Amino acid sequence: MPTAPCTVRHARREDVPTILSLIKELAEYEKELSSVEATEASLAQTIAFVPDGSDFSTPGGADATTPTRPARCLLLFNETGAPAGMALYFYNYSTWRARHGIYLEDLFVRPSERKKGYGKRLLSELAKETVTSGGGRLEWVVLKWNEPSIRFYGSIGAKSMDDWVGMRVDGDALPRLAGLE
Amino acid sequence: MPTAPCTVRHARREDVPTILSLIKELAEYEKELSSVEATEASLAQTIAFVPDGSDFSTPGGADATTPTRPARCLLLFNETGAPAGMALYFYNYSTWRARHGIYLEDLFVRPSERKKGYGKRLLSELAKETVTSGGGRLEWVVLKWNEPSIRFYGSIGAKSMDDWVGMRVDGDALPRLAGLE
Repeated sequence: MPTAPCTVRHARREDVPTILSLIKELAEYEKELSSVEATEASLAQTIAFVPDGSDFSTPGGADATTPTRPARCLLLFNETGAPAGMALYFYNYSTWRARHGIYLEDLFVRPSERKKGYGKRLLSELAKETVTSGGGRLEWVVLKWNEPSIRFYGSIGAKSMDDWVGMRVDGDALPRLAGLE
Repeated sequence: MPTAPCTVRHARREDVPTILSLIKELAEYEKELSSVEATEASLAQTIAFVPDGSDFSTPGGADATTPTRPARCLLLFNETGAPAGMALYFYNYSTWRARHGIYLEDLFVRPSERKKGYGKRLLSELAKETVTSGGGRLEWVVLKWNEPSIRFYGSIGAKSMDDWVGMRVDGDALPRLAGLE
């Protein structure tokens, strides 16, 4: 599928309202709107923006200097300049390689903007940032029952990590494990 | 199980040889020694050290200022002061919460130092760092067939993310997806 005309760039601080509305649209699509705690203020505090709006030749930005600002965001605009999709991601790490990689936390293309190759374009830009920054791999997770997505990801070269299962400690279990209660 | 006497602290730059030998011991244990590309030089370049060797009240350190230095390391020393285990981790991100979390990439306790509660102690310290840094969750992955570990993780409050499967693009597939070849 050829990609429809579009532009992709790292998010700037003034994009926060756009990012929040895309997050809410994604959550609504997944019937998870009530789970969204993100606000403009919390996004502004946790995303590493590219202050001068530079392009992919300048991955990251001056904001990426604190551990509590690990998130990065790519925005995709359609041919009219309207926001059509985004990728929220952070840098992860491989111990065997002693090398970073990119982990894609959320990929979203507005329903009205689908079938234009935008999802693949965002994944391709992340692969490019992985390579140009010296990283070793690009990773994400997908719901097991989402077979169309898994087939699509396979078609662009992703392999599924079937042998592994994720573990999570959150909520009340977290301070309990920390011995803080 | 009560924890045997030990001390835990963030890694300093001079701990790199210790970290590499623990990584190699872990890889040997997993029969993956040939996969280890990490060297003292690459570890020194990619781990965010705590320069002054401060304790948990100072999470991270001045080194955590570049996106290609995402890794953090906790070392555990036994009652004689010998290195007995480590946790290699990085900060990840939840879009719904617009908040960071901690992702544990590798946890290792030397075989001769097991059954002393050291693994739980390292997990507990990570839970503490998650809470004190304002993070929302602590995550990792485990091999599906490793049922004793999964039971242990369940006993300390972790839930398994059974609905999700990981996807990975690496090797030749990465520049291909990036359109760089």
